Amino acid sequence: MENNSYAVAVLGAGNIGSAVISRLQDLDNDIVQLFIKKVLVTDLSKDREIDKELLTDNFDEILNDDSIDLVIEVLGGIDPGREYIKALLSSGKSVITANKDIIADCGEELVSLAIENNACLYFEAAVAAGIPVLKPLIESLRGEALTRVSGIINGTSNYMLTSMEEGSSYEDALSTAQELGYAEPDPTNDVEGIDAKYKAMILSLLCFGVSPEIEEVFTEGISKITKDDFDWASRLDKTIKLVAQIDNNNNGFNARVYPVLINQKHPLASIRGALNAVVVEGENVNQLVFSGPGAGADPTASAVIGDVLSACHQLGSNQSNWYPLRKNKGENRNFENVQSSWFIRLSVNDEPGVLASIAGTFGENNVSIESVIQEGRGDQAELVLVTHEAPEKDLNNSIEQITSLSAVTTVTSVLRVYI
Amino acid sequence: MENNSYAVAVLGAGNIGSAVISRLQDLDNDIVQLFIKKVLVTDLSKDREIDKELLTDNFDEILNDDSIDLVIEVLGGIDPGREYIKALLSSGKSVITANKDIIADCGEELVSLAIENNACLYFEAAVAAGIPVLKPLIESLRGEALTRVSGIINGTSNYMLTSMEEGSSYEDALSTAQELGYAEPDPTNDVEGIDAKYKAMILSLLCFGVSPEIEEVFTEGISKITKDDFDWASRLDKTIKLVAQIDNNNNGFNARVYPVLINQKHPLASIRGALNAVVVEGENVNQLVFSGPGAGADPTASAVIGDVLSACHQLGSNQSNWYPLRKNKGENRNFENVQSSWFIRLSVNDEPGVLASIAGTFGENNVSIESVIQEGRGDQAELVLVTHEAPEKDLNNSIEQITSLSAVTTVTSVLRVYI
Repeated sequence: MENNSYAVAVLGAGNIGSAVISRLQDLDNDIVQLFIKKVLVTDLSKDREIDKELLTDNFDEILNDDSIDLVIEVLGGIDPGREYIKALLSSGKSVITANKDIIADCGEELVSLAIENNACLYFEAAVAAGIPVLKPLIESLRGEALTRVSGIINGTSNYMLTSMEEGSSYEDALSTAQELGYAEPDPTNDVEGIDAKYKAMILSLLCFGVSPEIEEVFTEGISKITKDDFDWASRLDKTIKLVAQIDNNNNGFNARVYPVLINQKHPLASIRGALNAVVVEGENVNQLVFSGPGAGADPTASAVIGDVLSACHQLGSNQSNWYPLRKNKGENRNFENVQSSWFIRLSVNDEPGVLASIAGTFGENNVSIESVIQEGRGDQAELVLVTHEAPEKDLNNSIEQITSLSAVTTVTSVLRVYI
Repeated sequence: MENNSYAVAVLGAGNIGSAVISRLQDLDNDIVQLFIKKVLVTDLSKDREIDKELLTDNFDEILNDDSIDLVIEVLGGIDPGREYIKALLSSGKSVITANKDIIADCGEELVSLAIENNACLYFEAAVAAGIPVLKPLIESLRGEALTRVSGIINGTSNYMLTSMEEGSSYEDALSTAQELGYAEPDPTNDVEGIDAKYKAMILSLLCFGVSPEIEEVFTEGISKITKDDFDWASRLDKTIKLVAQIDNNNNGFNARVYPVLINQKHPLASIRGALNAVVVEGENVNQLVFSGPGAGADPTASAVIGDVLSACHQLGSNQSNWYPLRKNKGENRNFENVQSSWFIRLSVNDEPGVLASIAGTFGENNVSIESVIQEGRGDQAELVLVTHEAPEKDLNNSIEQITSLSAVTTVTSVLRVYI
């Protein structure tokens, strides 16, 4: 590697692209001799801090340039990046991308293409941005039988939940996140768990060899969480986090994204603000935690640069960086059979027999109750219940029946408890 | 890699060696075809759960066997492993070791040998056992300008400090650690910070390109810490941890191991029991935290297996896994110039002017005081001071002079505060 020099192309020159280009130009020549040959943009006339000679709006100029060894894709969105990456790998060029949408969509196919064509494919920045966690999962932990990978992998929603834990309303937390640039004007992807779902799909592939369909990953966001939920969580020595959780155990495989009440002592409970963390559990390593900045141009560029150095080191070998992907040995488990403990808040009329009818309904559905707290009296009464472990379907049936009880005014909150 | 088969030798068949051999024999053939050709032991006649045909007590049988691609060194101690590893790398064989003593002693030389001979050298297990942290530091973060790497990298002392935080005396914490097998009958290496010092030397090489001499790494252990120190730390919203800290900033490079009072909100404060954690700080990644099991046969074997898979993937390329090591660009800073904030407990006679003379002594040495608390009266009085940042030499001069003040009965504790 020390004696070779590599030509690189960059697809995209937006926020991340510019940070990557700037870091590449400053890169220490002791590590690798590397120069940027082409930068693909859509508008050649736009004013940029990039040498005009490098710019092109024609992808084929990059694809057909035999001197280009390595292409960095930072376009964002699925199209046209997906087809560009496929074409590059098929022609034996190595690819680095920060694009979670594309890897979630067809990561398995892209890894196969890379292996078939002795090309490299890296995408460390696609999950948890600046935290080096995918390479450890793919390489260092490849021999480890993993049982669970869970994480806080969306910085925006974690920033908002942290603000709410400190007393903000959901609306205030969102508008501050938007002012700070953490949340988009349309925050749906972040607050409804969609961004985390894509990342969970990538983790599913790398950790368990499963490429779930997008609709198979149950996804619930944070938009229904209230300050009152946080107050109750605090009384139970817990907080609330939007967690991606992928289990692969004797009960099979399941991946989901949802808000959970989580014990204050769990490593994920202490991940605050826009940080990310991934918790990896396996037979021999017990529990590993990787945490750090999960978003932003600098951490993302840092992950891309790490990938560039890995790729340059690998390029000399004329073989792909990929180990064979893990093979899923369990069955995919339907989400309705996944067990959780539950936190349920109900507004009720405090009349004789109300608790008996609620408890009876849970009992008929095989849901057993761990604790009940009643606050207030009369028609202002609130019941807060925590159940033992029960599958989604039994809990949903219980809630449906409880909603129709005459003494129950409102089912205020139904949240899972991380177990 | 998929189509190749590799012959492996293992040097040593103790606790770790047996766990590694057992994991290698169970390894999924989908990942790599790998078989154990030889196991080096000192006593051939000892009863073991290893096929007798594999055993040898002659290292040359392994060194001179051209069919052996990869050698795993798990002998422990520096000799004879060090010379074995040098001979193997020089002959182009790849080496995996879990041996922190050897890497601390001559890691830079071994990396050079590996690069020169196109051989692989991996030692993930040498620091923080089961946590994949060295590979991310060497590869994923190679392009990142790191400013500080700190960590809890000795599980035994952290187990003891956690027990003391929960109310144990030092003696009880040590004897429980010995009963559980966390501490050796002679616990010196763990409790005096020597084990952590070796690991800090390895981190210095990988993160900053510096191989400090063993005497250049200031090392203080935990044997003087008392329950009273923990009570005071708690009153200050802090706890006490044995920390390895390596800084490389505008003031130069310095590596040290010492107990510190550390804010309860710092990621290292929540690392409990025998766990380890490494905190990596850099210009673009801000702060990354890697935590998990730092000791034990299973986590150590897990790291060795990860290295084996990396090595097998790399072997096909006929080039070393090593990037050029980082080059130190700063100056080594003498420890006496390193700044800390300080926590100081003094037993004093509560007589007029005592605080003035103590404060005056600090002032003459340019040490400024952040807070003072006095507990008790008369000749039972205790003064607890926290200073602002001050270099070691100024603090040491102050303490020397304060010890000789007539009103000061005892200097009970002098501990640094993590800043």
